[in-house]
Amino acid sequence: MIQDQIKQVIRDVSDFPKPGIVFKDITPILKNPALCNEITKALAQQLASLNIDVIAGIESRGFLFGLALAQQLGVPFVPIRKVGKLPYKTIQQSYNLEYGSATLEVHEDAFEPGQKVLIHDDLLATGGTVVAASALVQKLDAQVVGYSFLINLDFLNGKERLKTFSEHIFSLADY
Amino acid sequence: MIQDQIKQVIRDVSDFPKPGIVFKDITPILKNPALCNEITKALAQQLASLNIDVIAGIESRGFLFGLALAQQLGVPFVPIRKVGKLPYKTIQQSYNLEYGSATLEVHEDAFEPGQKVLIHDDLLATGGTVVAASALVQKLDAQVVGYSFLINLDFLNGKERLKTFSEHIFSLADY
Repeated sequence: MIQDQIKQVIRDVSDFPKPGIVFKDITPILKNPALCNEITKALAQQLASLNIDVIAGIESRGFLFGLALAQQLGVPFVPIRKVGKLPYKTIQQSYNLEYGSATLEVHEDAFEPGQKVLIHDDLLATGGTVVAASALVQKLDAQVVGYSFLINLDFLNGKERLKTFSEHIFSLADY
Repeated sequence: MIQDQIKQVIRDVSDFPKPGIVFKDITPILKNPALCNEITKALAQQLASLNIDVIAGIESRGFLFGLALAQQLGVPFVPIRKVGKLPYKTIQQSYNLEYGSATLEVHEDAFEPGQKVLIHDDLLATGGTVVAASALVQKLDAQVVGYSFLINLDFLNGKERLKTFSEHIFSLADY
């Protein structure tokens, strides 16, 4: 099963980015081309029934399998970036972190009104970043039709927060 | 020709990130799945004779086609990141910017000694970031066997700086 393969390969790094956090390091996955291929196919398979128009990937690690997934499904890819990185006209959405806040940006012509958007990132934790990305999609009158993650830290209840946008929340490996 | 297709689609954004710079915005390419597919194939074709062991992609935009290219060639992908982003043990390389400096990081187990590494980024400008990435590869006793870019700003002479590491410097669209 793909979940077992992912869990075997992922590296747990203790106390990163700060004490008490066990970080899920996906770089060993990236070193395994056969597993990367399986992951892309498995992500695409989960989304087959959603009729997705666009994949939006969240900077930076959401760019990795985000574009691969868009290519697999034959749909456009839109990067959602940290503030100040995107040229051309953008819209912004701020969100709270444990200490302070952060801001995401997307091009104002990133989505057409009514488009069905799937948001991808490598990992779902508390969901704060993903909620901000969802707000950007909605500000442009597009529709969040689902979410796709490699990893879901289920004990942080991120899926609960995302359900207000879409019931279609997929992940390949849950902790 | 792929160069013409890329140039037709890229968006020039004046005065970004600062006055006087014309930024090459690749996001319209990402919206075109057929073109993304062509680009990945064209990048892979240029590298066919190099016997590459690993693709290293530079954060963030080098993650996009970097992983796609690694998948196309069936080789591992290694992310080279801005400082503080990678969990686990890393090595670092600083480089000068016009004002101040920046630091890149890679995992200390990213490459095995002697591995043939291809460095990928979306765009080659003056080459400062790519030289720092090359230094990281060499610090781990691996070998830079080539470079692959979507876009080369030839008037900035980045290729000249990279030639000290490898003669194999490929790009799909030159300005």
